[in-house]
Amino acid sequence: VPSAEIVAVGTELLLGQLVDTNTAFIAQALAGIGMDVHGTHTVGDNRERIAELVGGALERADGVITSGGLGPTVDDVTKEAVCDALGAGTRVDGEAIEAMEALFASAGRELRENNRKQAILPHGATVLKNAHGTAPGFVAWRADGKFVACVPGVPFEMKAMVAGQLLPLLERHFHLRETIVTHTLHTFGIAESEIDHRIADLFEQSDNPKIAVLAHRFTCDVKLNGKAQNREEAQALIAPMADEIRARLGAVIYGSDSETLAFVVLQLMRERGERLGVAESCTGGLVSAELTAVAGASDVFVGGVVAYDNDTKTRVLGVPPKRIAEFGAVSGEVASDMAQGARTNLGSDWAVSVTGVAGPSGGTSEKPVGLVYAAIVGPYGVTAHRLQLSGERAQVQQRATIHALGLLWRRLRAEPKGARET
Amino acid sequence: VPSAEIVAVGTELLLGQLVDTNTAFIAQALAGIGMDVHGTHTVGDNRERIAELVGGALERADGVITSGGLGPTVDDVTKEAVCDALGAGTRVDGEAIEAMEALFASAGRELRENNRKQAILPHGATVLKNAHGTAPGFVAWRADGKFVACVPGVPFEMKAMVAGQLLPLLERHFHLRETIVTHTLHTFGIAESEIDHRIADLFEQSDNPKIAVLAHRFTCDVKLNGKAQNREEAQALIAPMADEIRARLGAVIYGSDSETLAFVVLQLMRERGERLGVAESCTGGLVSAELTAVAGASDVFVGGVVAYDNDTKTRVLGVPPKRIAEFGAVSGEVASDMAQGARTNLGSDWAVSVTGVAGPSGGTSEKPVGLVYAAIVGPYGVTAHRLQLSGERAQVQQRATIHALGLLWRRLRAEPKGARET
Repeated sequence: VPSAEIVAVGTELLLGQLVDTNTAFIAQALAGIGMDVHGTHTVGDNRERIAELVGGALERADGVITSGGLGPTVDDVTKEAVCDALGAGTRVDGEAIEAMEALFASAGRELRENNRKQAILPHGATVLKNAHGTAPGFVAWRADGKFVACVPGVPFEMKAMVAGQLLPLLERHFHLRETIVTHTLHTFGIAESEIDHRIADLFEQSDNPKIAVLAHRFTCDVKLNGKAQNREEAQALIAPMADEIRARLGAVIYGSDSETLAFVVLQLMRERGERLGVAESCTGGLVSAELTAVAGASDVFVGGVVAYDNDTKTRVLGVPPKRIAEFGAVSGEVASDMAQGARTNLGSDWAVSVTGVAGPSGGTSEKPVGLVYAAIVGPYGVTAHRLQLSGERAQVQQRATIHALGLLWRRLRAEPKGARET
Repeated sequence: VPSAEIVAVGTELLLGQLVDTNTAFIAQALAGIGMDVHGTHTVGDNRERIAELVGGALERADGVITSGGLGPTVDDVTKEAVCDALGAGTRVDGEAIEAMEALFASAGRELRENNRKQAILPHGATVLKNAHGTAPGFVAWRADGKFVACVPGVPFEMKAMVAGQLLPLLERHFHLRETIVTHTLHTFGIAESEIDHRIADLFEQSDNPKIAVLAHRFTCDVKLNGKAQNREEAQALIAPMADEIRARLGAVIYGSDSETLAFVVLQLMRERGERLGVAESCTGGLVSAELTAVAGASDVFVGGVVAYDNDTKTRVLGVPPKRIAEFGAVSGEVASDMAQGARTNLGSDWAVSVTGVAGPSGGTSEKPVGLVYAAIVGPYGVTAHRLQLSGERAQVQQRATIHALGLLWRRLRAEPKGARET
């Protein structure tokens, strides 16, 4: 199995001021085409140290992938360091210059000398075009077939380049015939330890697919990694195990792979021909944002109201001031009123609402930080739920968002369309 | 200046299924006491590879800090690998056994044999007690004064151990009297290469403070790292350079350090005694979410409307259907109407609106994906802005959010309260 090491370049990473997420993405991408990652490294924008690290990694592995340090500034030295490590000269890539000129012209800006620096590449390197920015990437080859691939540090530029160009190139170069397929089952409303308890025996028995339980964004995932000659065989290995886990965990699995709670909720509602509105206070727009992160949300999601101020709850959602005065803005009663107001005023079939104390201030002994109410209103009535969530402000907001969507998902599943129509 | 390298241990990190945040924390902690971090590494739970990496790092730096792999299971081999690298024997730490017994007894559980393994330490090592878990950490010393420190991988156990025990120990050992202070200036509306162009000479002249330009979340940061005997001296080194950069970049700097655009907008509006509403379409709640991510937003931010559906733009924001039919939902006209509708219906002094084509579908040759209009309405009228943004759906949404807040910030700064009152 061919192997690689990954190097993230950037002094700001070393100072701990930025958390590197590129390396995890690249590692996962390489695992997907059956390459082994032996180690990963971070190094500052220091030509000598980068060259030393890349040279050392090439002794241990078949290739090195670096991210970062391809920018136009004087402290971007990855390319020079890689040339040092490979003993390679450089050339100017004419196409890269043209692409940059076009990009700058469309933005009404002129190409500066320091941008031209970005088009200098090691001799004999294969260019990786950058669809989203100025810095092209490249793969430089050593005579013995080992390689150094350099991609930009900006995550979305890097991701497009790795997935669209680098992986196919490596698959061809190494004639990769082993692939790892990952199948992920997402659960809502069950603890990691409970999942562990229910499937611990499968865990120990099964080496391929490998099973892992991961707490992730306030829900829990079960990951199955199957290794085989091709995707189909890997999927065939995974399928019976996935069925067994589905049978054991049953009703808590809301989706798989790239399906988010928001995606599943929109999907279920689309199938029913119904539409959704949102009213939120402490989550401040996150429930709407989670829904609209899904492409094509517009046929189901009509819109939302961020009723942060009590006056807005009354003005836009029609919550009676008397109810706020009697029960408080953070209460099941006001959550229900908000949901019903959203359903009426937005003209949707369903609405979900959230109101709570996100903190850090605003908590009382009776209504502490983390107390959140979520309400769901649909064709068959309203339900309100009381949640006590932990964590800092951002965590409370995110947890409340996931819980609101999870509770809505449960009701959609429990109430088939037309079931209770009279 | 004493130097260190950091090693994160764990096969799950190499597979990219978990993003390592420990390394960034340890790096920042070391920078804070004036140690240089030369490089960081990740390696799987493999005794040979860990030993090789630790041994290599000890050649380059004065010490190595590892996190992870101290647990009770068979695949936890960090300790054995470190002993290999140092050529050290082991001993059982009686105190660590007692501490574990006490911890287990208080949980009503019995100590298992594999837990006892956690009390085995390299000969001569200094124990780092674990206040939050079973695995003690340690610092093992080489005869030449170089060290290997091992701390657990569980973030909150690691953090307490590093901050409470490891840092004071390293400060004493290396007689550290140096500290690094970071000051960050945030800009909006200027390209990285343009900043570079304006301050390139400072960049090259100044070694302390060190200057770095970072593209970050669709804005650009200028970072100044000052190194001195104590915080005050470091800040005194930074201050004149920060002033010089402020003078050169002037009006594009919106804030510093932890100040976000949303924070600065809320602050400026709070000083004016005015309040803000939001109307958004393609950003789907992100503008509101960005504002409510700031603690204490509620005195300024009254609320927002996510008018995703055209019908919602009319129902809740009062945009005339005729205007939508004439100009299209993605237009400066409708953006202006949305902002004005939000200001009126939410009863705020200011409102910001966003409408656009986030993609991936919905684009036309006339209104392509990435076309976004933002409008700002304040006491002195409405301005609409046309933006052509690049990237995938999520990037377009995030860029539109940052631009909307940036444009609002510009107007707040350009229109002092009362300046144009008639």
